[in-house]
Amino acid sequence: MPSQMGKTMVQISLEGGRRDLARSGLADAALTMLERGLRAVDPGEAVRRSVRREGATLWAGRREYRLEGRKVLLLAAGKAAGGMAAALEEILDGWIGGGLVTVPAGVIVPPLSVPVREAGHPLPDEASRSCAEEVARLLQGAKSEDLVLVALSGGASALWSLPASGLCLADLRETTRLLLESGAAIEEINSVRKHLDLLKGGGVPLLAPEARFVGLILSDVVGDHLETVASGPTMPDPSCFADAWGILERRQILDRVPSAVRARLAAGLSGKLPETPKADHPVLARVENLCVGSAQEAVAAILRAAQEQGFAAACLTSTLQGEASQVGLVLGNILREEALHGRPLPCPCALLAAGETTVRITGKGRGGRNLELGLCAASRLAGLDGVLLASLASDGMDGNSGAAGAVVDGESWRSAVAAGLDPGGLLAENDSLAFFQAVGGLLRTGPTGTNVNDFSLLLAR
Amino acid sequence: MPSQMGKTMVQISLEGGRRDLARSGLADAALTMLERGLRAVDPGEAVRRSVRREGATLWAGRREYRLEGRKVLLLAAGKAAGGMAAALEEILDGWIGGGLVTVPAGVIVPPLSVPVREAGHPLPDEASRSCAEEVARLLQGAKSEDLVLVALSGGASALWSLPASGLCLADLRETTRLLLESGAAIEEINSVRKHLDLLKGGGVPLLAPEARFVGLILSDVVGDHLETVASGPTMPDPSCFADAWGILERRQILDRVPSAVRARLAAGLSGKLPETPKADHPVLARVENLCVGSAQEAVAAILRAAQEQGFAAACLTSTLQGEASQVGLVLGNILREEALHGRPLPCPCALLAAGETTVRITGKGRGGRNLELGLCAASRLAGLDGVLLASLASDGMDGNSGAAGAVVDGESWRSAVAAGLDPGGLLAENDSLAFFQAVGGLLRTGPTGTNVNDFSLLLAR
Repeated sequence: MPSQMGKTMVQISLEGGRRDLARSGLADAALTMLERGLRAVDPGEAVRRSVRREGATLWAGRREYRLEGRKVLLLAAGKAAGGMAAALEEILDGWIGGGLVTVPAGVIVPPLSVPVREAGHPLPDEASRSCAEEVARLLQGAKSEDLVLVALSGGASALWSLPASGLCLADLRETTRLLLESGAAIEEINSVRKHLDLLKGGGVPLLAPEARFVGLILSDVVGDHLETVASGPTMPDPSCFADAWGILERRQILDRVPSAVRARLAAGLSGKLPETPKADHPVLARVENLCVGSAQEAVAAILRAAQEQGFAAACLTSTLQGEASQVGLVLGNILREEALHGRPLPCPCALLAAGETTVRITGKGRGGRNLELGLCAASRLAGLDGVLLASLASDGMDGNSGAAGAVVDGESWRSAVAAGLDPGGLLAENDSLAFFQAVGGLLRTGPTGTNVNDFSLLLAR
Repeated sequence: MPSQMGKTMVQISLEGGRRDLARSGLADAALTMLERGLRAVDPGEAVRRSVRREGATLWAGRREYRLEGRKVLLLAAGKAAGGMAAALEEILDGWIGGGLVTVPAGVIVPPLSVPVREAGHPLPDEASRSCAEEVARLLQGAKSEDLVLVALSGGASALWSLPASGLCLADLRETTRLLLESGAAIEEINSVRKHLDLLKGGGVPLLAPEARFVGLILSDVVGDHLETVASGPTMPDPSCFADAWGILERRQILDRVPSAVRARLAAGLSGKLPETPKADHPVLARVENLCVGSAQEAVAAILRAAQEQGFAAACLTSTLQGEASQVGLVLGNILREEALHGRPLPCPCALLAAGETTVRITGKGRGGRNLELGLCAASRLAGLDGVLLASLASDGMDGNSGAAGAVVDGESWRSAVAAGLDPGGLLAENDSLAFFQAVGGLLRTGPTGTNVNDFSLLLAR
């Protein structure tokens, strides 16, 4: 059934859970709620909410486009590119005249008419550069009447990488790596990338300055600042060379990035290079950007699912951020309050925090933000009955753990200590995976085909 | 009126607030709620809830003590020692036969019959040692029928300092300083101190092994683990030499503490020194410990005051902990959710988090946990209307700032940036005081005479 092609029917499985964890019912309840959340941000659904066609007329957001006499290009990149592209091909039903879809390795993509390629993530690789070069070639061939649909989702920053003059791929790769390890926020990482890479920070329409563009953006960034998703290829860039320089300085990596990177930023600072397009740049007048979906839809679906299961439900925040371990302590203590005092909400209750935490890498272990958050929350839940915290990356890939997230309850911490583990030491080594391999509770989804924020769900009975 | 002697009538004043901040009404509302919270943990009130006398019979908790024929000693230390001692003198009305009250410099103490002395805080000084020696002398003179009332509140760990054999005051002082700077949790700091100091970790009853003891404890520790308050002079010590060693190792200061400290802990580890008394130690059978008050009473009073002012009110957690800056981000984002989405509670609402965060000192500035929490929360509130976050140390002294806490709203961050400040740089220098000196919003109370946890109050209209 073609209308199902882009549909995410993700199932979350709980790995190695202790029998009492599975039996508590809370784990089942949490997984059901989170699956409902993931389905609400199915990329095909998201596109179909914003784009429709009747005959030769396409509506995207509130604008309409006549399709006769113009070529339609479909460019898509990111973890949700497959589902978004499939929905667009279905809607446009033969009107698409070319394009390219780029996804991270391992993401399952439905059959498409435009070419599909895999590229590197979270660090760009040779495939990222050759995909970006193909995108640039397609754009440079576009005419003034052509329509370019640019479907963007999280991860696209690494999948398309077109180094600015004077830079090579290795420069971008090393700078990205240093930024990721420094614990920089995604806005910061992207502000730097936009000043080093020609496809970012409004660079896409510059390459086809007469074509019309529709940016369809599935937001994976906290607060849904669209210029940050995928480093904003079709968006005005609010940041400038001085910001990029300041970020490297503040994160103490200015002297460690490749010298060509420093040289380019210095040239930009002294006015020798043009800035990225700002909101009043004329090229952006022919670009329409639409947020087709974000964590908000998932938050609403998770809360609804919780209420249907009889839980009092509330969203604590949809812009969660901060160092994962510390955020885990705060959320763990909020859930502890539920267990000990039945507040802030009456039990049974579900409290949800959506967003994305960061991890400052200090060790060589395997783990991810959701796993570290869960590990630290577990320390605050030790010995409590009737509580469970589940933390999940909506793309199904939490850091380098291979898992999507984790579940902890009142026994998790005690099991780890009883097994002779030193959870504090594991945390210092960023080895949260080892904690969960020992005590169970890993969540696995495989690549979900979508990508909004992370979800931390606190349940108390 | 003698019954008012120990009463805290603390007023909180807002310093250098912008006129629009004062005018918003939210600042006034927050200060009223917090004042109600402080009054609920007035140390005199707390003692009177737990101790009463009729004729020659004293009731403490559920036990009764005949006063004839025995000497009653009153030992009190901590930020609330003055108010607690005054209430006990009033209740015992002439039955007290000696004792010592020790408070940090600057705390106002009502007139008392037992001697009052000031000593060092947060680092112990010569006065701390001579007070501890006087306590030891009084205890060594106690007979089997004597009753020792030990009124303890936060800060007492530094105010009484009796170095164990082989150690000097400077050793304890330096170890405390290193622990404080390492960001160690109060439980960790105290586990170390209990193994270096004879008055801590159940050491007090050991010095008068036949007398009866009543420990009256005003809890300033998150979760109200009484063995942690004042380093538990009358409480069994759940920690052992190996824990103390492990904490110094984990906090990476084992090689920086004085060699005599390492030597003592090593001797303890190899069984050459007796452990601190554990729960089954016979000396503790003659000790009764009562929690006379804690943050819970203040939490209840703040929520009640908020409801009386028409706010929906809930406690998020009464065990808040974590690095102040990161906790500030989480609380700021929860309040942001209120402003943008009217959740987790319907507006107008008051959300309260009680506990105590920590600051890992990296700079040389002036500030405190509540000021850092406020500064970071402000970054998440920038530009929002109708929100205010107030964070307050209940003892009136937040870190080395000289202030009790701070208030931030949607303008605080923007005012700072407009004034040319670099808030991130100030944070890295632990100079949150400079931020608030520039934008206003410092809260001052002077020493409040009580000491439970900190309170972070989030208001949205």
